[in-house]
Amino acid sequence: MADPWQKAYDFAVEVAREAGEEIRKAGECEMKVQTKSSTVDLVTKTDERVEKIIIRALKGEFGDGAFIGEESVANGQPCVLSDKPTWIIDPVDGTTNFVHGFPFVAVSIAFAVNKELEFGVVYSCLEDKMYKARKGKGAFCNDEPIQVSDVEEIKKSIIISEHGTDRRKEVVTKIFSTMQKILCIPVHGLRGSGTAATNMCLVATGAVEAFFEIGIHCWDIAAGAVIVQEAGGVLMDVDGGPFDLMSRRMVSANNKKIADRIIKEIEAFDVTRDDAPVQKKE
Amino acid sequence: MADPWQKAYDFAVEVAREAGEEIRKAGECEMKVQTKSSTVDLVTKTDERVEKIIIRALKGEFGDGAFIGEESVANGQPCVLSDKPTWIIDPVDGTTNFVHGFPFVAVSIAFAVNKELEFGVVYSCLEDKMYKARKGKGAFCNDEPIQVSDVEEIKKSIIISEHGTDRRKEVVTKIFSTMQKILCIPVHGLRGSGTAATNMCLVATGAVEAFFEIGIHCWDIAAGAVIVQEAGGVLMDVDGGPFDLMSRRMVSANNKKIADRIIKEIEAFDVTRDDAPVQKKE
Repeated sequence: MADPWQKAYDFAVEVAREAGEEIRKAGECEMKVQTKSSTVDLVTKTDERVEKIIIRALKGEFGDGAFIGEESVANGQPCVLSDKPTWIIDPVDGTTNFVHGFPFVAVSIAFAVNKELEFGVVYSCLEDKMYKARKGKGAFCNDEPIQVSDVEEIKKSIIISEHGTDRRKEVVTKIFSTMQKILCIPVHGLRGSGTAATNMCLVATGAVEAFFEIGIHCWDIAAGAVIVQEAGGVLMDVDGGPFDLMSRRMVSANNKKIADRIIKEIEAFDVTRDDAPVQKKE
Repeated sequence: MADPWQKAYDFAVEVAREAGEEIRKAGECEMKVQTKSSTVDLVTKTDERVEKIIIRALKGEFGDGAFIGEESVANGQPCVLSDKPTWIIDPVDGTTNFVHGFPFVAVSIAFAVNKELEFGVVYSCLEDKMYKARKGKGAFCNDEPIQVSDVEEIKKSIIISEHGTDRRKEVVTKIFSTMQKILCIPVHGLRGSGTAATNMCLVATGAVEAFFEIGIHCWDIAAGAVIVQEAGGVLMDVDGGPFDLMSRRMVSANNKKIADRIIKEIEAFDVTRDDAPVQKKE
């Protein structure tokens, strides 16, 4: 079969759009009946419901492939990438944004075979932007081809990153120190959308030159990884080594020159790999 | 005359939309014929052209009111708010975003009489969101009423701020130190859109609880100031005193409780007021 995954790719786009519509509806309808200060349940409920919708649709169409999903992993499912065809899913990337109505919330669906990413779909549902890419076939936003920025000079770049959710003092201090050093290279500016999936798509469209973060999970960036590469960008580890989807460390950039320059400033800190053996509770 | 400024308000909305269309076109067409690395001229040209379009339209309709505009001031026009009806204009708020195609670029038009802001219009032209507010008449986004978030607990808030364009070490250090302390209160998250006008509209819609910055100019925030207040929010100085449009210091928030809590963490630095006498070049 010449093109074994095209059908799965097209189906993933459909499912991402449906999931995005669910999220939009949940935001619009349910927000109205509760105050912003009581939305923790809404987030968990929406996250779980949307992940179930996605997994059910994909299983219905393609049988029992392997699944790595944010919610499933939170509920104790394993997070190990095998050679089997595997769906890697973040139903709602940007849950804090979702609660607040901040305009970046994304559905992220990626597909890997033999531990290689085959395609990725990111639907930025509040902006209604459908990003997608398949290995060797280019990257698109709403069916228009996209490509990374041509900027080679770090001083003409915008860099995007996140403060993350870890509030331990030593971690926060390293994150701020890194950002300050990058700002003072100097660069044109620093930004943060609050969702890793969207940040990667912003690299892919050329709106920013690079996105880096330590602490992201594989489901946040798997789809974006294909999109950035197919848009002409590069992926690396934060120490300059090869990108490792399970390491929770990533630099994605328009080119290696920009990535290398940022890497010089990054102060790394320890994170537990996504595929580390789960500590059994005694 | 019961409602002397309604016509001016409606006209400002029209003009902002036209200006935004110019900006979108400039971004789409001219970007294609040049690489991203050679866009400094494009920015200046677009800024100046759009400001001229706005001022010409307003003068044509309403005669020679006073004007305070980013480009006019850069070209040596005075920046003093008198009792005269005065238009305060930022033709392209978010020029760095504009160059990079980052999705927040705004046209900001405000109108003051007797040094009081009467109305403000912010057109976020890449998102196609028209924000507007008139004193005593409420705030709107695309004609839907908007209101600030009801969050009272700082720990449930998103705070938005910018790193600014000043890269002096002592300034950057204070900005990062402030952001780090606010993040570690802790809050839900920090964001930055890269445009002050849009940041204020994000406060007005409830997407974030507060926006603060030292170093902004009156044209960045005059329109947003009316929009935040009419959406139910508050404006203050960064030391907790009353808001002063010309001071280049501002906290805008959904309520005083959130504003007060942020103010505790802000490390201020000196900036020259917008209406300071211009140093004559010898």
